[in-house]
Amino acid sequence: MTQSVYTVTGMTCGHCVTSVTEEVSALDGVQHVDVDLPTGTLTITSDTPPTTDDVRAAVTEAGYELANA
Amino acid sequence: MTQSVYTVTGMTCGHCVTSVTEEVSALDGVQHVDVDLPTGTLTITSDTPPTTDDVRAAVTEAGYELANA
Repeated sequence: MTQSVYTVTGMTCGHCVTSVTEEVSALDGVQHVDVDLPTGTLTITSDTPPTTDDVRAAVTEAGYELANA
Repeated sequence: MTQSVYTVTGMTCGHCVTSVTEEVSALDGVQHVDVDLPTGTLTITSDTPPTTDDVRAAVTEAGYELANA
Protein backbone atom coordinates (compact mmCIF):
# COMPACT_ATOMS: atom_id res chain seq x y z
CA MET A 1 0.00 0.00 0.00
CA THR A 2 1.32 3.42 -0.98
CA GLN A 3 0.42 6.89 0.18
CA SER A 4 0.60 9.85 -2.20
CA VAL A 5 0.26 13.37 -0.86
CA TYR A 6 -0.87 16.45 -2.80
CA THR A 7 -2.11 19.91 -1.96
CA VAL A 8 -5.45 21.09 -3.31
CA THR A 9 -6.35 24.77 -3.50
CA GLY A 10 -9.77 26.40 -3.56
CA MET A 11 -11.69 24.20 -1.14
CA THR A 12 -13.74 26.22 1.33
CA CYS A 13 -16.13 23.83 3.05
CA GLY A 14 -17.11 20.25 3.70
CA HIS A 15 -18.96 20.04 0.41
CA CYS A 16 -15.72 20.82 -1.40
CA VAL A 17 -13.98 18.07 0.55
CA THR A 18 -16.74 15.64 -0.41
CA SER A 19 -16.45 16.54 -4.10
CA VAL A 20 -12.69 16.03 -4.16
CA THR A 21 -12.93 12.81 -2.15
CA GLU A 22 -15.54 11.39 -4.53
CA GLU A 23 -13.60 12.19 -7.69
CA VAL A 24 -10.25 10.94 -6.42
CA SER A 25 -11.82 7.82 -4.89
CA ALA A 26 -13.08 6.88 -8.35
CA LEU A 27 -9.52 6.56 -9.73
CA ASP A 28 -8.28 3.02 -10.44
CA GLY A 29 -6.58 1.32 -7.52
CA VAL A 30 -7.41 3.95 -4.91
CA GLN A 31 -8.24 2.38 -1.54
CA HIS A 32 -8.75 5.43 0.63
CA VAL A 33 -8.79 9.21 0.27
CA ASP A 34 -8.28 11.69 3.07
CA VAL A 35 -8.72 15.43 2.60
CA ASP A 36 -7.78 17.97 5.26
CA LEU A 37 -9.72 21.15 4.60
CA PRO A 38 -7.61 23.70 6.55
CA THR A 39 -4.37 22.71 4.85
CA GLY A 40 -5.79 21.38 1.56
CA THR A 41 -3.79 18.20 2.04
CA LEU A 42 -5.01 15.31 -0.10
CA THR A 43 -3.67 11.90 0.95
CA ILE A 44 -4.33 8.98 -1.38
CA THR A 45 -3.84 5.41 -0.21
CA SER A 46 -3.60 2.90 -3.04
CA ASP A 47 -2.11 -0.37 -4.17
CA THR A 48 -0.63 1.31 -7.23
CA PRO A 49 -0.55 5.11 -6.97
CA PRO A 50 -2.50 6.98 -9.66
CA THR A 51 -0.42 9.25 -11.89
CA THR A 52 -0.20 12.91 -11.01
CA ASP A 53 -2.02 13.67 -14.26
CA ASP A 54 -4.90 11.42 -13.19
CA VAL A 55 -5.03 13.02 -9.75
CA ARG A 56 -4.95 16.47 -11.31
CA ALA A 57 -7.77 15.52 -13.69
CA ALA A 58 -9.91 14.25 -10.80
CA VAL A 59 -9.30 17.36 -8.70
CA THR A 60 -10.05 19.59 -11.69
CA GLU A 61 -13.23 17.63 -12.38
CA ALA A 62 -14.30 18.35 -8.81
CA GLY A 63 -13.74 22.05 -9.48
CA TYR A 64 -10.46 22.67 -7.67
CA GLU A 65 -6.73 22.77 -8.44
CA LEU A 66 -3.59 20.93 -7.50
CA ALA A 67 -1.11 23.33 -5.93
CA ASN A 68 1.97 21.20 -6.43
CA ALA A 69 3.47 18.49 -8.64
CA MET B 1 -46.63 36.67 -5.22
CA THR B 2 -44.49 37.89 -2.33
CA GLN B 3 -40.77 38.25 -1.93
CA SER B 4 -39.11 37.74 1.45
CA VAL B 5 -35.47 38.66 1.93
CA TYR B 6 -33.09 37.24 4.52
CA THR B 7 -29.33 37.15 5.06
CA VAL B 8 -27.60 33.80 5.49
CA THR B 9 -24.15 33.54 7.08
CA GLY B 10 -21.53 30.84 6.66
CA MET B 11 -21.91 30.01 2.97
CA THR B 12 -18.54 29.79 1.22
CA CYS B 13 -19.13 28.15 -2.15
CA GLY B 14 -21.62 27.04 -4.75
CA HIS B 15 -22.32 23.82 -2.88
CA CYS B 16 -23.46 25.86 0.11
CA VAL B 17 -25.77 27.88 -2.15
CA THR B 18 -27.22 24.64 -3.52
CA SER B 19 -27.84 23.24 -0.03
CA VAL B 20 -29.66 26.36 1.14
CA THR B 21 -31.65 26.59 -2.09
CA GLU B 22 -32.78 22.97 -1.82
CA GLU B 23 -33.89 23.23 1.81
CA VAL B 24 -35.72 26.53 1.41
CA SER B 25 -37.33 25.42 -1.86
CA ALA B 26 -38.90 22.50 0.00
CA LEU B 27 -40.93 24.83 2.24
CA ASP B 28 -44.68 24.99 1.57
CA GLY B 29 -45.75 27.59 -0.94
CA VAL B 30 -42.26 28.57 -2.09
CA GLN B 31 -42.14 29.25 -5.83
CA HIS B 32 -38.55 30.35 -6.31
CA VAL B 33 -35.41 30.77 -4.24
CA ASP B 34 -32.47 32.97 -5.12
CA VAL B 35 -29.23 32.95 -3.12
CA ASP B 36 -26.44 35.47 -3.70
CA LEU B 37 -23.21 34.00 -2.36
CA PRO B 38 -21.09 37.16 -1.96
CA THR B 39 -23.73 38.96 0.11
CA GLY B 40 -25.51 35.96 1.62
CA THR B 41 -28.82 37.37 0.43
CA LEU B 42 -31.63 34.81 0.33
CA THR B 43 -34.68 35.92 -1.65
CA ILE B 44 -37.79 33.76 -1.41
CA THR B 45 -40.65 34.16 -3.88
CA SER B 46 -43.90 32.60 -2.71
CA ASP B 47 -47.66 32.79 -2.81
CA THR B 48 -47.80 32.83 0.96
CA PRO B 49 -44.45 33.66 2.60
CA PRO B 50 -43.07 30.98 4.94
CA THR B 51 -42.68 32.07 8.55
CA THR B 52 -39.27 33.26 9.68
CA ASP B 53 -39.10 30.24 11.97
CA ASP B 54 -39.64 27.93 9.00
CA VAL B 55 -36.98 29.74 6.97
CA ARG B 56 -34.58 29.60 9.88
CA ALA B 57 -35.22 25.88 10.33
CA ALA B 58 -34.54 25.24 6.63
CA VAL B 59 -31.33 27.28 6.66
CA THR B 60 -30.18 25.55 9.84
CA GLU B 61 -30.97 22.16 8.31
CA ALA B 62 -28.72 23.10 5.40
CA GLY B 63 -25.97 23.85 7.92
CA TYR B 64 -25.98 27.67 7.94
CA GLU B 65 -27.49 30.50 9.94
CA LEU B 66 -29.88 33.37 9.45
CA ALA B 67 -28.14 36.64 10.24
CA ASN B 68 -31.28 38.71 10.71
CA ALA B 69 -34.90 38.46 11.81
